[in-house]
Amino acid sequence: MRKLKWGMIGGGEGSQIGPAHRLGAGLDGAFEFAAGALDHRPDAGRDYGRRLGLDADRAYGDWHEMLEGEKNRPNRVDLVTVATPNSTHYEITKAYLEAGFHVLCEKPMTMTIEEGEDIVRIAEATGRICAVNYGYSGYSLVRHMKAMVARGDLGQIRLVKAEFAHGHHADATDADNPRVRWRYDPAQAGVSAQFADCGIHALHMACFVTGQDVEKLSADTVSCIPSRVLEDDAMVNFRLSGGTVGRLWTSSIAIGRQHGLTLQVFGEKGGLRWAQEQPNQLYFMPLGGRLQIIERGEANLSPEADRTSRVTIGHAEGMPLAFANIYKDLAEAIRAGKEGRPIDPAANLYPRAEDGLRSMAAVFAVAESGLAHGQWVEARPPMFR
Amino acid sequence: MRKLKWGMIGGGEGSQIGPAHRLGAGLDGAFEFAAGALDHRPDAGRDYGRRLGLDADRAYGDWHEMLEGEKNRPNRVDLVTVATPNSTHYEITKAYLEAGFHVLCEKPMTMTIEEGEDIVRIAEATGRICAVNYGYSGYSLVRHMKAMVARGDLGQIRLVKAEFAHGHHADATDADNPRVRWRYDPAQAGVSAQFADCGIHALHMACFVTGQDVEKLSADTVSCIPSRVLEDDAMVNFRLSGGTVGRLWTSSIAIGRQHGLTLQVFGEKGGLRWAQEQPNQLYFMPLGGRLQIIERGEANLSPEADRTSRVTIGHAEGMPLAFANIYKDLAEAIRAGKEGRPIDPAANLYPRAEDGLRSMAAVFAVAESGLAHGQWVEARPPMFR
Amino acid sequence: MRKLKWGMIGGGEGSQIGPAHRLGAGLDGAFEFAAGALDHRPDAGRDYGRRLGLDADRAYGDWHEMLEGEKNRPNRVDLVTVATPNSTHYEITKAYLEAGFHVLCEKPMTMTIEEGEDIVRIAEATGRICAVNYGYSGYSLVRHMKAMVARGDLGQIRLVKAEFAHGHHADATDADNPRVRWRYDPAQAGVSAQFADCGIHALHMACFVTGQDVEKLSADTVSCIPSRVLEDDAMVNFRLSGGTVGRLWTSSIAIGRQHGLTLQVFGEKGGLRWAQEQPNQLYFMPLGGRLQIIERGEANLSPEADRTSRVTIGHAEGMPLAFANIYKDLAEAIRAGKEGRPIDPAANLYPRAEDGLRSMAAVFAVAESGLAHGQWVEARPPMFR
Amino acid sequence: MRKLKWGMIGGGEGSQIGPAHRLGAGLDGAFEFAAGALDHRPDAGRDYGRRLGLDADRAYGDWHEMLEGEKNRPNRVDLVTVATPNSTHYEITKAYLEAGFHVLCEKPMTMTIEEGEDIVRIAEATGRICAVNYGYSGYSLVRHMKAMVARGDLGQIRLVKAEFAHGHHADATDADNPRVRWRYDPAQAGVSAQFADCGIHALHMACFVTGQDVEKLSADTVSCIPSRVLEDDAMVNFRLSGGTVGRLWTSSIAIGRQHGLTLQVFGEKGGLRWAQEQPNQLYFMPLGGRLQIIERGEANLSPEADRTSRVTIGHAEGMPLAFANIYKDLAEAIRAGKEGRPIDPAANLYPRAEDGLRSMAAVFAVAESGLAHGQWVEARPPMFR
Repeated sequence: MRKLKWGMIGGGEGSQIGPAHRLGAGLDGAFEFAAGALDHRPDAGRDYGRRLGLDADRAYGDWHEMLEGEKNRPNRVDLVTVATPNSTHYEITKAYLEAGFHVLCEKPMTMTIEEGEDIVRIAEATGRICAVNYGYSGYSLVRHMKAMVARGDLGQIRLVKAEFAHGHHADATDADNPRVRWRYDPAQAGVSAQFADCGIHALHMACFVTGQDVEKLSADTVSCIPSRVLEDDAMVNFRLSGGTVGRLWTSSIAIGRQHGLTLQVFGEKGGLRWAQEQPNQLYFMPLGGRLQIIERGEANLSPEADRTSRVTIGHAEGMPLAFANIYKDLAEAIRAGKEGRPIDPAANLYPRAEDGLRSMAAVFAVAESGLAHGQWVEARPPMFR
Repeated sequence: MRKLKWGMIGGGEGSQIGPAHRLGAGLDGAFEFAAGALDHRPDAGRDYGRRLGLDADRAYGDWHEMLEGEKNRPNRVDLVTVATPNSTHYEITKAYLEAGFHVLCEKPMTMTIEEGEDIVRIAEATGRICAVNYGYSGYSLVRHMKAMVARGDLGQIRLVKAEFAHGHHADATDADNPRVRWRYDPAQAGVSAQFADCGIHALHMACFVTGQDVEKLSADTVSCIPSRVLEDDAMVNFRLSGGTVGRLWTSSIAIGRQHGLTLQVFGEKGGLRWAQEQPNQLYFMPLGGRLQIIERGEANLSPEADRTSRVTIGHAEGMPLAFANIYKDLAEAIRAGKEGRPIDPAANLYPRAEDGLRSMAAVFAVAESGLAHGQWVEARPPMFR
Repeated sequence: MRKLKWGMIGGGEGSQIGPAHRLGAGLDGAFEFAAGALDHRPDAGRDYGRRLGLDADRAYGDWHEMLEGEKNRPNRVDLVTVATPNSTHYEITKAYLEAGFHVLCEKPMTMTIEEGEDIVRIAEATGRICAVNYGYSGYSLVRHMKAMVARGDLGQIRLVKAEFAHGHHADATDADNPRVRWRYDPAQAGVSAQFADCGIHALHMACFVTGQDVEKLSADTVSCIPSRVLEDDAMVNFRLSGGTVGRLWTSSIAIGRQHGLTLQVFGEKGGLRWAQEQPNQLYFMPLGGRLQIIERGEANLSPEADRTSRVTIGHAEGMPLAFANIYKDLAEAIRAGKEGRPIDPAANLYPRAEDGLRSMAAVFAVAESGLAHGQWVEARPPMFR
Repeated sequence: MRKLKWGMIGGGEGSQIGPAHRLGAGLDGAFEFAAGALDHRPDAGRDYGRRLGLDADRAYGDWHEMLEGEKNRPNRVDLVTVATPNSTHYEITKAYLEAGFHVLCEKPMTMTIEEGEDIVRIAEATGRICAVNYGYSGYSLVRHMKAMVARGDLGQIRLVKAEFAHGHHADATDADNPRVRWRYDPAQAGVSAQFADCGIHALHMACFVTGQDVEKLSADTVSCIPSRVLEDDAMVNFRLSGGTVGRLWTSSIAIGRQHGLTLQVFGEKGGLRWAQEQPNQLYFMPLGGRLQIIERGEANLSPEADRTSRVTIGHAEGMPLAFANIYKDLAEAIRAGKEGRPIDPAANLYPRAEDGLRSMAAVFAVAESGLAHGQWVEARPPMFR
C-alpha cells in the first residue's frame, strides 16, 4: 500500500506538539512526512525541515509558500496538519480546505463561533476532511466505551461525569511566570482559560462516548489564584441532546493530580469508569452485577477497540498511540475516498469540524454562564440550534 | 476508671444502627449499656433490652417511660443515644436535654431549621452535650486532615471537592420497592432525598476538615429515574466562610460505585485526597513535591490522629472504629465535665447541634436552589447569619 | 441470650494485644470480661483488672491463682485467653484445658513440636476447645475464599502464593535496639524469626483457604542485616496434601511495604487475590472471563462470609472485626456445646490446636531446610505423618 | 541529522514483532527502514517488503541474499534486527556481525551457552554492536530505578524481588492447542518454557536495575498442567555478584494476572516498586520516610529517565515507547561510533550480547536446578566464572 503524503505547518524545533504529530502520523507507516512549514522564522523552518529529511524544495518558509508549492504538484500532500498558534488556525485551515487539501487542525479550531461555522460550511462544500485533534478520543478503551453505549450495553444513559483536573498551575508565584500567565489573560487566551484548555477535552469525551451533543449548560467558574482574570477551576453542569445529565469538573490548581482526565458513564443497565492515567483498564459494572475490569487488548471487544489496540494484552499502551489512532482513522478515510469505497465504520471516529465548532460554542457558553453566576445558557452554535 | 452509663432509644432487634451504636459505645469499655427503650412496640423493646443484658427495670417500653425512670436515679445514664425514626429526633432530643441528659442524636437532628435552632438554644442553655452522629468524621485520617489544615500544612484552602455517590438505587424497578420508594417521596422524606441522606455527610466532612461553614450554594438536582419526585443525583457548588470554593457530587444511581464518599482538599501549599472505602491511606502532595501516602498509625501524626487510631500500622481499620471514636470523644467530654477540667482539645471534635442545624439549613438550601434552576441561595440558618 | 464469661491471662496495661482481645471478645456482646490475671507483677495485674471493671475477687495476681479461683466457681469463665510471653503458652494452656476450660491461645501455641502434640492430645482427651489465634483467618472475604474453594468455584487448586513481607525491621541501626534484637536472637526467639513471627500467618492462611495441610517444604532463609543470626527474609516453597504447589515470601526488610499479607490462589477454573491492607475487596477471575471485584457485604456471598460481615457494603471493615470473628466462632462453639447441638458449620472455622501444632512443625522445617541450603524436608508433625 | 539505515530479518506479514520493531525503529525518525528479508517464503517476503516501501532491490528473499546485497553497498544498512525463529538467531547474528554490521537480536540470542559465548567473542573481536532485545529495560522509570541504585539512593541493595506471572496458559484444554503446546515441549522449546519465555525478562530486569550479575540459583519448577513436560510455573532464588539476594516468580497459570512483570528492590536506605502494567509510576520509600510516587516525566529525575521520557507528565506512556528507547540507545551508539566520540552514558544502556549469554546460562541453570529438586547451581557462563 503506497504511503500517503503528509505535511505539517508549525511544530518547529523545540515544540512538544511537533514530535507528537510526527510520531502519530508515522507510527503505522501510513503517512510519509513530505512537506512542512515548521517555523514562523522561514529560514529556521526550512533548515529544520531539511534536517528532518524533507526534500529541499518541500521544506517551506511559511504556510503560504507551502500552499503555493503543494497545490499543483502531482504528488502533493494528502493531509496537512495545522499546529500553529491558536489565532492562526482559522485562516490556514480555511485556505488549505479551499485548495482541496484534507486538514487536521489542532484545537481550538477557531477563535470564534462564526469562524467555526465558516469552517464547517467550507468542509461540507469542498468535501474535504477537516479533522480536529481531540486526541484522547483515540484510546482503544474510549472507543470501546462508545461502542458499548451505542450497542445498548448500558441502556439509556442517565448521567455522564467528566473530569480534567490537575495541579500544574497551582503555584501562586507562577502567576507572574509569562509561560503560565498568558493562559489566564483574556487579551491572549480569549474568554476562558482552564475550561478552554483542558475542560473542553473532557466535554468532547463525554459527547463522543455518549454520541450526544451539549444543548445547554451552567458553569461555576473561579480564579483560585486571585491575580488571574480567567478561571483556573470550573464546575459545569450540562444537558445532552439525548436527555443525559452531565457534570464536568476542570481545574489547574488541584495539587496532587497529575492529569486527571476521567470519565464515568451511568446508564439504566450499567456503569463505566475510565481514567487517562491508567488507560488500559476500563471498569464496568452491569446493574445488579459485579465490578469487572475490561483490559485493552482482551478478546471479543468491539471492532472499534480492536482496531485501535496495537500491543498484546497486559502491555501498557499510552497517549502517543491514542494520538496515532486519529491518524489511522484519517488514513482510512483518505484512502476510502481515493478508492471510492465507504469508510470502515469502526474507523470513522476522528473528531471533525462539527466537534471543533460545538466545542467553541461550549467555551463561550461556559464563559457567559460563569459571568452570570451559573445561569443556564444555550451551548449550541447557531447553525445547530 | 468507672464506666459511664449509656442508654439507647431505638435500635431494636433487626435494625442495623442498633448494633453499630452498641459496638461503638462499648468498644473502649468507656460506656456500659445500662438502659434502653429499643422498640416502638413496648413489649418487644423491653424483651430485647433484657436479652441484651439490661436490668429488667431499665428495659423500658418507650422513651417517655425511660425518661421518667432515669431522670431521678442516682446512677442514671450519662448519655442517651437517639436512633429512632427521623421525625421523632427533635422531641426526644429536646426532652432529654431539658431533663439534663447528654444526647447523641442520629442525623438528621431535626426536620426543620426552626427545630434545629431550638435544639441549639436548648443545648446552650442547659449546658448539656448535644452531639449529632456524622460518624465518618471519626476516622483517624479524617482527623489528621483537619489537623493538617488547621496547622497550616496546606496554606489557605482554595477548593474542597467532596463526593458521596453510589449506585445502590439505580435499578428503575426498585422505584416501586417500598424500602426504596419512600426515600424519594416528599411526603415521607421531606424536601430532599439523596442530598439529605448522603450528600450531607460529604458536606459535613468538607466543613469539618476545613474548619469552615457553608454560606451559600447552588444546586443542580435531578431525578434520573423519572418516577421519583425527589433527586437521586445532585451537584452542589458552595462557598465556605473562609473563602474556600466547594464542589459536591452526590448520587444514588452511579452504578459501579459502592459507597463513594471521598474528599479532596486543595490549598496554596498542598493537596489532600481521602476515600472512605480505603480509609487507612491519605494522599498528600506538597506544592512542588511528590505525592506521598500517609498511613493511619504511622509515627508522628497529629494528636488528633493518634488518639483515634487503635491498631498498628498496616492493619486495616474500618467504619465501626470511626464510629466508636465519636463515643470516645463523648466519653472524654462527659468525664471532663464531671471532673471539672478542660476537654482534651484533640478529643473535642464530635459533631454537635450546630452541625446538625447547619446541615438542615443546607438541605433546605439545596432543595430551594434545585427548584430555582441553580440560583445561588443563602445556606446559613437564620441564627448564624 | 446470657453472655458467656471470659477471662484473660496477660495483656496487661500498655500491651497492644490486651485491648485487641477485649475489643474482639466484647464486640458482639457475646462475652463478658469476668476474670483476669493481666500482669506478671501480681499487684499491677490486680489493680489494672479492677480498673477495667473486674470484681475484686476475680482480678487475680497470676494464672495459678486464677485457675484456683475460677475452677470451682459456679459462674466460672467459659473461655480463657492466653496472651502471655510465648514460652509460657504451653504450660498455661495445658493447665486450663486439664481443668476443663476452653482456651484461646495466642500464637505460637508452644515452643516445641512435642509440646504441640501434647496439647492436641489433651484437647482431644478433655473435649475442650483449644483455639489458636491466627486472627487474619477471621476476615469475611478470607472466609469467602475458603468457601469458594470448597464448593469448587476454582476447580482443583494448582498453586497458592502467599506473602507477609513488610519493612519494619529494615533499619540496620535497629539491630541493636533491644525491642527488635531479641526477635533475631535464637536464645530468645527460637529457631526462626521472621517466618515464625509473620510467615506462619501466611502459611496458615494458605492452608485455611485451600483446606489442605503442608507436607514438605524447601526454604531459602537469609539475614539481610548481617548482625542477625535468625532470618529477616525467607522464601519457602511447599507442597500441600491435596497436591497444590505453594510459594511463600516473608520479609521484615521490605521497605515501603506496610504489612504485606496477601494471598493468591490459582485453580483450574479461576484465580483469587486478596490483601489484608484492603480487606474489603477480593479479586476473582474465572478462566476465560474477566477480573471482577467481590465486595465484602455484597448479596449472595457464602454463609461463611455473610456471618462475618458486620457493616453494609462499601463501608470499610478492618482487622479488629476479623479478630472479633474468631471470638464469634468460639461463642457459637461454646454455646452449641452447652446446648448439646451441632455447631453451625459456617462458624466452625476458628483455628485450633492442630493448626498450632502444624504451624510449629512448619517453623522447625523452615529452619532445618534453611540451614540445609533449601533441601526439601518433611513439614508434618510426627503425629500426622 | 541524516537518518541511519535499518534492515530487518523476519517479522513478516501477520507477525506481531515486525510492526513493533518498525514502530520502535521509526519512532524518533532516527532510522529509516531500508532493507529487509521478512519472510521464510522468499516471494512473500519480497512482496511484503516492497509494500512496506522498500526499494525493490532491497526487498530480499532471504537473509543470505540480504547479506550479499548489503555488505558492499555504499549506503548499506547501519543496523540489522534479527526477528526470526529462535533456532536461527545464532547463525544470522554471527554472519552479520562478521560482515561488519551492527545487530539487534531478539531474545533468546542463541540456543546454547557455547553459541552465546561465541557471539560475545565475535562482537568483541569485530567491535560491532550486538544488542539483545530485553525491551522492558527501555521504560523510563526502569532506567530511573537503575540510576537511583547506581547513585546510592537506596544504599547497598539487600534484596530484589522480581515477578513475571500471568495466566494466559492456564486453560488445560489449551495444552492440546499447537500454538501453546510447542512451548512446553522440550523438542521444540529447549530446556525451559515459562522461565525461558518470561522469567528471563524479570531476571534481566533485576540485574539491569541492580547493576549486578547472577552467580548461582535454586529453582522450584513445576508443571501445573500435568501433560506438560516443561514448567509452567517456577520460583527461582538467586544470588547476585554484589551480594544481593534475589527471588523471582514466573507463571503462566496465574489466572487473573494479565502480564505481571513487577520489580521490587530493597536496600539499606530505601525500597522501590514498579509494575509494567502501570509503568508511569514508581513507588519509592526512603527508610523511615513515607511511600512516595515518582511520576514518569516529573522534573529533576535522572538523565537516564529524562532521555527516555517522551510525553509530558500525566500522559500515559506504554510498551511501544520502551521498545523504541532501545533503538534510541542504538542510534546514539552507532552515531557516536561514526563520529568517533564517546557514547552519552545515559544512553549506553541497551542490553547486549553479554546479557544474552548470561540469560542463556541462567535458563540452563534453572532447568538443571529444577530437575535436581532445587539444588543450588552455578548460573554464570563458563567464560565469566
